[in-house]
Amino acid sequence: MDRKIISVKAEILRELRNTKGYISGQEISDKLGVSRTAVWKVIQQLEAEGYDIEAVTNKGYHLISYPEILSSGELMSRMTTLWAGRRVYYHKETESTNEDAKYLAEEGMEHGSLVVADMQTGGKGRRGRTWVSPAGESISMSLLLRPDFLPDKAPMLTLLMAISVAEVITGLHRDLDVKIKWPNDVLVNSKKVCGILTEMSAEPDYIHHVIVGVGINANQTLFPEELQDMATSLRIEKGEKVDRTALIIGIMEYFEYYYGIFAEHLDVSDFVDIYDSYLINKGKEVRILDPKGEYTGVAEGINDSGALIVKLSDGTIKTVSTGEVSVRGIYGYV
Amino acid sequence: MDRKIISVKAEILRELRNTKGYISGQEISDKLGVSRTAVWKVIQQLEAEGYDIEAVTNKGYHLISYPEILSSGELMSRMTTLWAGRRVYYHKETESTNEDAKYLAEEGMEHGSLVVADMQTGGKGRRGRTWVSPAGESISMSLLLRPDFLPDKAPMLTLLMAISVAEVITGLHRDLDVKIKWPNDVLVNSKKVCGILTEMSAEPDYIHHVIVGVGINANQTLFPEELQDMATSLRIEKGEKVDRTALIIGIMEYFEYYYGIFAEHLDVSDFVDIYDSYLINKGKEVRILDPKGEYTGVAEGINDSGALIVKLSDGTIKTVSTGEVSVRGIYGYV
Repeated sequence: MDRKIISVKAEILRELRNTKGYISGQEISDKLGVSRTAVWKVIQQLEAEGYDIEAVTNKGYHLISYPEILSSGELMSRMTTLWAGRRVYYHKETESTNEDAKYLAEEGMEHGSLVVADMQTGGKGRRGRTWVSPAGESISMSLLLRPDFLPDKAPMLTLLMAISVAEVITGLHRDLDVKIKWPNDVLVNSKKVCGILTEMSAEPDYIHHVIVGVGINANQTLFPEELQDMATSLRIEKGEKVDRTALIIGIMEYFEYYYGIFAEHLDVSDFVDIYDSYLINKGKEVRILDPKGEYTGVAEGINDSGALIVKLSDGTIKTVSTGEVSVRGIYGYV
Repeated sequence: MDRKIISVKAEILRELRNTKGYISGQEISDKLGVSRTAVWKVIQQLEAEGYDIEAVTNKGYHLISYPEILSSGELMSRMTTLWAGRRVYYHKETESTNEDAKYLAEEGMEHGSLVVADMQTGGKGRRGRTWVSPAGESISMSLLLRPDFLPDKAPMLTLLMAISVAEVITGLHRDLDVKIKWPNDVLVNSKKVCGILTEMSAEPDYIHHVIVGVGINANQTLFPEELQDMATSLRIEKGEKVDRTALIIGIMEYFEYYYGIFAEHLDVSDFVDIYDSYLINKGKEVRILDPKGEYTGVAEGINDSGALIVKLSDGTIKTVSTGEVSVRGIYGYV
């Protein structure tokens, strides 16, 4: 699958970024098949957005620096994926990116479309809980998927996203202690930095669409008092600001890669080892809030379906499917 | 759970219907706790809609006859259920009752709310196919459910609805040969009279809502030529018009009853016998369109999960889950 040009602005930004020295308006115009006037107009726009672009007669343009902002141009110019996040719908402010993605799904937007917002006014957590996503500090994004597998496989996509997020944070910030709390919270130093809300619209044997929503505490410096014991941000743990665009792009890359592997077997057998390596509950006592009665056991890892394997004190092995129960460990409620 | 008054009009109609002789405006007023003026206004409305109501001084009102129409007043006045279809949203014409029910779901309408339309302009079948629902002849309805069980149980609701429809048609029209084609088409004389489209909005471990859409060919007298071999109406098979309101009410009664039983075990073990008694495929050869390769066998019935049990010629038993495959028997494609 070849990359196709979705946004001229993003492509021009990509050319500027990939050029060590200078690139002329004519070169860009030839490469992208757009007029020189169009190139010039985009350069003006980019400068207005805070990109520092040097223009030298007979040499061309040179990108000196770019602003620390989230924007669709910035995201799409740096995106290297084939489908995941290739088309970005960016909002400075929106109620909920999952709701936006649902709307795009109904409008027929393609598999892999990504909604990103700098701020959500009504961010959603699981089961209708709220998720706080302040301006300029957080990442709120929702990926629209149109899988051709059966609805009962969809919950595993949540695990794939959790691993993707964990891998990218680890890759970009080697000094951070990244863990996953089963099934899908990502923690740093035992506090939550990322929540995932997967929503599906389906018939019994046919998925209309799946939306994987991801909220990341990136650059917050302060949390409400009642959350301070449970939540943190990458910036707080790292002691410096992180590049949100790099995180988003990295997550799309990992997710696209993992999705391809997953689609072959439709189970998480290829991901058990990596998931377990992040699993904060592994080898620890967990309390299973089964509707038929609570019980405790030691979490041993996940199985090929993504269920948590729990060993009871009498040696019995139980598997806890995504959502069948809640798990309470020493780290509070999932 | 007591029945609560949702529509004064429906309750007044119910009183008129349940009274053999005459009931005075004062009696109705006292019974329902509404003013006599309100009672009088509703009587006027009903007469305008075609209800023939006799009014005799010092005796009161007497319902002589009622029109053969679908209306929320007619439906709600005859509805005897506790929750299924207790609140009816009736449209003379709408694009799709499933879409309407989705909208109501987002607006927070309660479990059991029912959308009914006399005609759909964009009726939906499974997987985006179309469903024809002409004015004055068909039944198009969508029941909104908010189950508290897990999403993987929801496909079985389709089977419950199929049995409900089959039971009601059989009960009201004993002379018709009613069958179910697995998983959820209802046939009369081997032709389709009812299709069911179940749609769900869910998180991996939490159902937002389920919408069970039901389309019934009730009083059509003619089908497009390309459908004549596959589809029929109750009127065509019976040779006379059927009462659509009675069908809708009956289906709500059966579904409410079956839903209560289903909710106890969350499987269809209590329904296997009755389902199999309607199963047109039972004991017949079926062709399973498995993505891994077609095969044929003899359908033996369903199991506790609603899957079709198929015996291959070498004696092997296979179970075909809802949606895993298509089944082609001697009756065309499901």
